[in-house]
Amino acid sequence: MQNFIFPDIEPLKISRYSRILSTGVALPRNVVTNQNIIDRYNIIATDRAVEYALGIKERRWTGLDEKVEDLMEEAINQCLERANVDIDSIDRIVFTKLAGDYHVPATSIGALRKLGTKKGIPAFDIFAACSGFVHAMDLAIRYIASGDDYVLILGGSAMGKCCHYWNMPDPKTVFLFGDAIAAMLVGYSDVQHFFSSYIITNHFLYDNALIRYGTSYKNNGENVDSSIFFMKIADGNTVFQSSAQYAKVISDKLLSDYGGSIDDIDHFVTSDQSTRIWEAQLKEIGFPKEKSTSLFYKHGNTVAAMSPLNLNHLIESGRLKRGDVVMMQAHGAGASSGGMIFKY
Amino acid sequence: MQNFIFPDIEPLKISRYSRILSTGVALPRNVVTNQNIIDRYNIIATDRAVEYALGIKERRWTGLDEKVEDLMEEAINQCLERANVDIDSIDRIVFTKLAGDYHVPATSIGALRKLGTKKGIPAFDIFAACSGFVHAMDLAIRYIASGDDYVLILGGSAMGKCCHYWNMPDPKTVFLFGDAIAAMLVGYSDVQHFFSSYIITNHFLYDNALIRYGTSYKNNGENVDSSIFFMKIADGNTVFQSSAQYAKVISDKLLSDYGGSIDDIDHFVTSDQSTRIWEAQLKEIGFPKEKSTSLFYKHGNTVAAMSPLNLNHLIESGRLKRGDVVMMQAHGAGASSGGMIFKY
Repeated sequence: MQNFIFPDIEPLKISRYSRILSTGVALPRNVVTNQNIIDRYNIIATDRAVEYALGIKERRWTGLDEKVEDLMEEAINQCLERANVDIDSIDRIVFTKLAGDYHVPATSIGALRKLGTKKGIPAFDIFAACSGFVHAMDLAIRYIASGDDYVLILGGSAMGKCCHYWNMPDPKTVFLFGDAIAAMLVGYSDVQHFFSSYIITNHFLYDNALIRYGTSYKNNGENVDSSIFFMKIADGNTVFQSSAQYAKVISDKLLSDYGGSIDDIDHFVTSDQSTRIWEAQLKEIGFPKEKSTSLFYKHGNTVAAMSPLNLNHLIESGRLKRGDVVMMQAHGAGASSGGMIFKY
Repeated sequence: MQNFIFPDIEPLKISRYSRILSTGVALPRNVVTNQNIIDRYNIIATDRAVEYALGIKERRWTGLDEKVEDLMEEAINQCLERANVDIDSIDRIVFTKLAGDYHVPATSIGALRKLGTKKGIPAFDIFAACSGFVHAMDLAIRYIASGDDYVLILGGSAMGKCCHYWNMPDPKTVFLFGDAIAAMLVGYSDVQHFFSSYIITNHFLYDNALIRYGTSYKNNGENVDSSIFFMKIADGNTVFQSSAQYAKVISDKLLSDYGGSIDDIDHFVTSDQSTRIWEAQLKEIGFPKEKSTSLFYKHGNTVAAMSPLNLNHLIESGRLKRGDVVMMQAHGAGASSGGMIFKY
């Protein structure tokens, strides 16, 4: 880890610009409290102790009758209605997933079926865990730079549904995850809105948080352990420390490329894997709490949806206005992180 | 399916060009013959009947001691050596996977660890099954158009390793899949080499071929069926027919955008899920067999590696030379397909 080298930031070479047209969010119906989880799994804990330790009161979990594609449809419809854009105008869909409805085909194709379009819109899923939405935004502006007019990106997770398979949850992670899908429509703009983009990985932390479904899985017979549906976190402190450290490095790199200081940023939006991780990032970059927000207390870790959920909340609440400058970041348990500076 | 609408082709709006610098391939050591599979699973079949029906003689399967990241490392090293480019010069890595070593983090980060670089190169995985490599190539030229100098893309699969878990294989698919990883280095170029790109999805065929790992999985207790590691193909004929139909539509769209006819194409490279699927595509687009190639007979369905394996073979054998014009396509069981025209 000491030998890890952060790459230089590459200035964007873009002359065909884009901007955020709208955002949308879909949440499952079921609100699950800490007490619900304690009761269901007979965990030795109290609601108050869980809230004190993690900062979380409740989260949403998808029910057995809800699919990821249902949530995607709802988020897409809200997003498109807000921008007054029709699905058939969309050039491309990118979904950054944790688990989709199926492993293959891409769940973004399932969402197109739900939407009922007859046009064979290009669509695929990407994998970058909690940092995924920044990867997808970075992709969107590059697609528009090279010819697209409208790119729809989605991110999020339905880990709660996986909990239905899980009779012996890991008490370290069962309270953390919530379900949500966030959508963002990025469209062509004749003036520049996206100024800087920076993404890193750190393979020294590759093994710290993982889901063991894949060719490394070893079983001892015909059946497979249901833990392959769940995130295993070796060291939560590494997630905490890397998020804070990377937040500062990414902020410095973005600001040097942008040519401004932290005082030029109106809002800081990030992935909040816990209330303390959010606060630690703010402290590292020297940013006032009242110009940021964290929905962790009521939505939990929604993986790739954390950053866009917070962005959507700032927009819906009227705190973030057109013309404001945003630094948005997303951190993936140490293995992958990124950020952008844009004018909303 | 009758109501499905192919999108119009969008001309690339790119002024910062790229070209293919090199390719590389890694294959597992173990050669698995039809007879090996027949013996291992007590399948009622003969080697000759399997070869006659599918066109396959053998394939490679990863052993229990081989990981996807090992194959990625080998393919990357070959690719970078051929281009004489150092790993630390790479701006971004995109791996189009079926199953990686883990589900999360991205297996491309695991490959970076194997390569031993200390630089935190941006890297993520995408999901687009057999059509994935064309998605990744399309991505690479857009990254370079907007600022990157070197983008390394990888594609392929290690389904054979999953077969170690599989005590009751599906005789419809067990002979089909082989393991391989293909790599391609795309770099900045001052003259245009990539002329046209076209990608589609067809959600009407979303359910035809799938791997059931995900939130749609329903179990009846603590254990999970090992079939969640494997591709289930409802209707092989749909895979065959859609590949042939899409090959023609994609060829027509690409040629109209390129402003040429099929006679201007020196080589046709595609995904060959069977020898007959390869031949059917050639017939549909009216292209001579001797200007294409299919390695299906000895490598099987290597998912996202099929097209680049065939491209690499044409290059290694000296048949495809610098300056030749290539139409490259990849088809994903009906749900996703794409193609490009480029000068090698």
